[in-house]
Amino acid sequence: MAGKAEKALGELVDLCKEIHLLRSCSSLLGWDERTYIPQKGTPHRAEQQSLLAGIVHDKFTSPKIGDLLNEIENSELVDDPLSPAAVNVREIRRLYDKEVKLPKSLVEEISRTVTLSEQAWVEARKKSDFHMFSPWLAKMTELKRQQADAIGYKKERYDALLDDYEPGETAENIKKVFDGLRKELVELVEAIGSSSRRPDISILERNYPVDKQEVVSKTASASIGFDYNGGRLDITTHPFCTTIGPGDVRITTRYNQNHFGQAFFGVLHESGHGLYEQGLDPQYAGLPMGESVSLGIHESQSRMWENFVGRSKPFWIYFFPWVKKVFWESLNDVKLDDFYFAINDVRPSLIRVEADEVTYNLHILLRFEIEHAIFAGDLKTDDVPGVWNENFKRYFGIVPPDDARGCLQDVHWSCGYIGYFPTYTLGNLYAAQFFAKAKEELGNLDEQFSHGSFTDLLSWLREKIHKHGMRYRAPDLVKEVTGKPLSHEYLMSYLKEKYGMLYGI
Amino acid sequence: MAGKAEKALGELVDLCKEIHLLRSCSSLLGWDERTYIPQKGTPHRAEQQSLLAGIVHDKFTSPKIGDLLNEIENSELVDDPLSPAAVNVREIRRLYDKEVKLPKSLVEEISRTVTLSEQAWVEARKKSDFHMFSPWLAKMTELKRQQADAIGYKKERYDALLDDYEPGETAENIKKVFDGLRKELVELVEAIGSSSRRPDISILERNYPVDKQEVVSKTASASIGFDYNGGRLDITTHPFCTTIGPGDVRITTRYNQNHFGQAFFGVLHESGHGLYEQGLDPQYAGLPMGESVSLGIHESQSRMWENFVGRSKPFWIYFFPWVKKVFWESLNDVKLDDFYFAINDVRPSLIRVEADEVTYNLHILLRFEIEHAIFAGDLKTDDVPGVWNENFKRYFGIVPPDDARGCLQDVHWSCGYIGYFPTYTLGNLYAAQFFAKAKEELGNLDEQFSHGSFTDLLSWLREKIHKHGMRYRAPDLVKEVTGKPLSHEYLMSYLKEKYGMLYGI
Repeated sequence: MAGKAEKALGELVDLCKEIHLLRSCSSLLGWDERTYIPQKGTPHRAEQQSLLAGIVHDKFTSPKIGDLLNEIENSELVDDPLSPAAVNVREIRRLYDKEVKLPKSLVEEISRTVTLSEQAWVEARKKSDFHMFSPWLAKMTELKRQQADAIGYKKERYDALLDDYEPGETAENIKKVFDGLRKELVELVEAIGSSSRRPDISILERNYPVDKQEVVSKTASASIGFDYNGGRLDITTHPFCTTIGPGDVRITTRYNQNHFGQAFFGVLHESGHGLYEQGLDPQYAGLPMGESVSLGIHESQSRMWENFVGRSKPFWIYFFPWVKKVFWESLNDVKLDDFYFAINDVRPSLIRVEADEVTYNLHILLRFEIEHAIFAGDLKTDDVPGVWNENFKRYFGIVPPDDARGCLQDVHWSCGYIGYFPTYTLGNLYAAQFFAKAKEELGNLDEQFSHGSFTDLLSWLREKIHKHGMRYRAPDLVKEVTGKPLSHEYLMSYLKEKYGMLYGI
Repeated sequence: MAGKAEKALGELVDLCKEIHLLRSCSSLLGWDERTYIPQKGTPHRAEQQSLLAGIVHDKFTSPKIGDLLNEIENSELVDDPLSPAAVNVREIRRLYDKEVKLPKSLVEEISRTVTLSEQAWVEARKKSDFHMFSPWLAKMTELKRQQADAIGYKKERYDALLDDYEPGETAENIKKVFDGLRKELVELVEAIGSSSRRPDISILERNYPVDKQEVVSKTASASIGFDYNGGRLDITTHPFCTTIGPGDVRITTRYNQNHFGQAFFGVLHESGHGLYEQGLDPQYAGLPMGESVSLGIHESQSRMWENFVGRSKPFWIYFFPWVKKVFWESLNDVKLDDFYFAINDVRPSLIRVEADEVTYNLHILLRFEIEHAIFAGDLKTDDVPGVWNENFKRYFGIVPPDDARGCLQDVHWSCGYIGYFPTYTLGNLYAAQFFAKAKEELGNLDEQFSHGSFTDLLSWLREKIHKHGMRYRAPDLVKEVTGKPLSHEYLMSYLKEKYGMLYGI
């Protein structure tokens, strides 16, 4: 019997690796589409992608996979739920069930609607008129409700969508954690706003030649451990990190000659994603044991390197003297403390993607509350602008002057990405909780950073998180690594300590 | 009946377009492999390529394709042999028969042998010892003989291999044309060697900053018509042109800061290939009617733009004043005539890829004679160095000092590319014959070039050659376009006139 199950496991692994290989071809096509493709090449690219997606779908929904899963699930191979075999089977089952449960007609309708809805969003944003987009959001919500119903859920529909991004997480739990966060965060933002201290952020807006920014960003990212023999850095409008395969992890950024931080911290952020990908176990490439846990855990890695490390004082004790030499014309009169304060400027602002690490989470809380209410049927899409602006005023003390800089600023809802937003703040929360534990276990991290040594932290992350792939779902991983369930307290005490010092509060 | 055949044709077209889409994914993977892939990403890339190749092979050898071909071939759809349907069916049949006739075991053995043989060639070239490589060449020849026998041929085995590169061409015909060329070419090279005139080629070896070379090369290539909205130029060690799909044709080059010509003429050469690809009919993308005729016809386009246009006096009457300004430091004391003479320097040299447009063909003649003799069993591989050096002396008046700079310089034979070499000179012959006809029909081409206008020539090529795809096999295309069968006379009179003037002979 075990022989039969083992044979089935072997076949399943081969099939999944083959599907992964095909998906990885799509990844390269996608990378090229966002970096180097000539303008007239895009229609052909769409055909290539759609053909590959079709082949992958056919292979993955073949009843053969269901049969193999059944065979293994009824064997002792999965007795230990944390064994690689059990983990792979558990997660392949999750994806397989979703893929076969979704009616093809619904998948196609969502796909068609996304195209139209995104076009409507682009137009609506251009005219700053949410009501042009509102019916599309309503339609998309309805389709995603059908999707959730087809897939099924335990407590509430929203959880079925959340599962695409943060498997094992629930709206109920997110709500609980976010509720704790909200009050303290708003208070902190108010306190910072009332402080008389203000950094001089104009020093970041001087002349920073792009070629030097590239050298500095790449050097810093290589210093924290990103392996450029197994990766690349290119330029795109919207920065991202993508994995083509083991040994091929690519990140991108955009440069602004008149801003030091945008590319630099962007590269650290994407490098954080890249370090996670480079730390996955290549023997399990193409299998859940060789894949990242969730968007939230992924974001915890990017945020940790970008903010907890990259915007820390010790990091700049090491890097600032060199960066100052590179950009001598712009930084020769700047002191470390002023530079450090400038890169940690906190102020209420309208646009999420430009927000600092304190206010950023309020942008997310606002979005989560609204999409959760729409999805639960408690909020009509037409009422979104009113609620958005009202809550924005409550959290930030300011009101967006128009929808383009308010509830129309993000593409997510137009693409049907409902359940995606909370993963950004989950990432910050995980990052804080992991980082606190790393400091506790590794001791003198600050001292190490100030000497340009980041290997202890990276090894710790590799050992505790990366190498496990999807062995633990995010909520369990947090408990496994830190001994505690997810809590808002770690992020808040990190923010209070850091910004308390900076703003004298 | 016609309805059934039409349905079959529709199905065949869909299948071929799907196979082409998959192949075009491989093309992008291949482009990336030679441009941007990080070092550690290559093993995964090999797996991706091998999976795609397997899927393509399975799809293309499916009996379904044979059935569809039969259905259409027995219908009136192919009554007109030059109709798109008939051409597509003719060429798909050619490829399908080859693919199904080749035993899988032979394909695999050739593939394994290529890997080992290429390694042996690299080693042998490093040590400049042909005898290390000789047994591999013998083995490869034997395998290629088996391939030829499996595929079948009319007159001689060599033709079965030639068919991979130059469908419809025969060794007998090549021999006849090359025989005519040889005598006159050797005489011309001797006459040039005896001339007292010599260009000062040192002016090309001054300081030519790479960024400016890129601007100049791209500008020239855009001027002759290469569309950068539907293409790219990147850097690689070995320049090439590849088509990802309609609207996406990519060329590459390499820059040498201390040589003006290598990148410039390399880019014109690859642009010539690119113009052909950009001129194919997109409605037939993925079908023979939307593909190039042969390697020789492809090379005729690259050579025409590189040499007949790019190394012509009128071309430089237009470009030289501007290029002089761009590289003022290196060219301010240089006269147009001296520059023109320098870029047309002719002298016997050891290395094919560095040869000028006169002696280049002697390099090819030598290789064709040797590979043809080996393949016919008239020459043992151990005797190659002797024959090579003897003939080299006869054609060029010099003897290679070692095998590395003699019979070991090219990779082709180690990869089993037998029948490939002659297409280079066929390209030059086609180019000369086409170009003579274009001048005859279009009149004042020199005048146009000297004003930077290349559209008449490009439109003529599009109309006469590009848009037909594989409608005509190469020998027929030449007759169709020029009214004459392929002859060495056009190339010889072009060379005699041009170099007669330059060298005063």
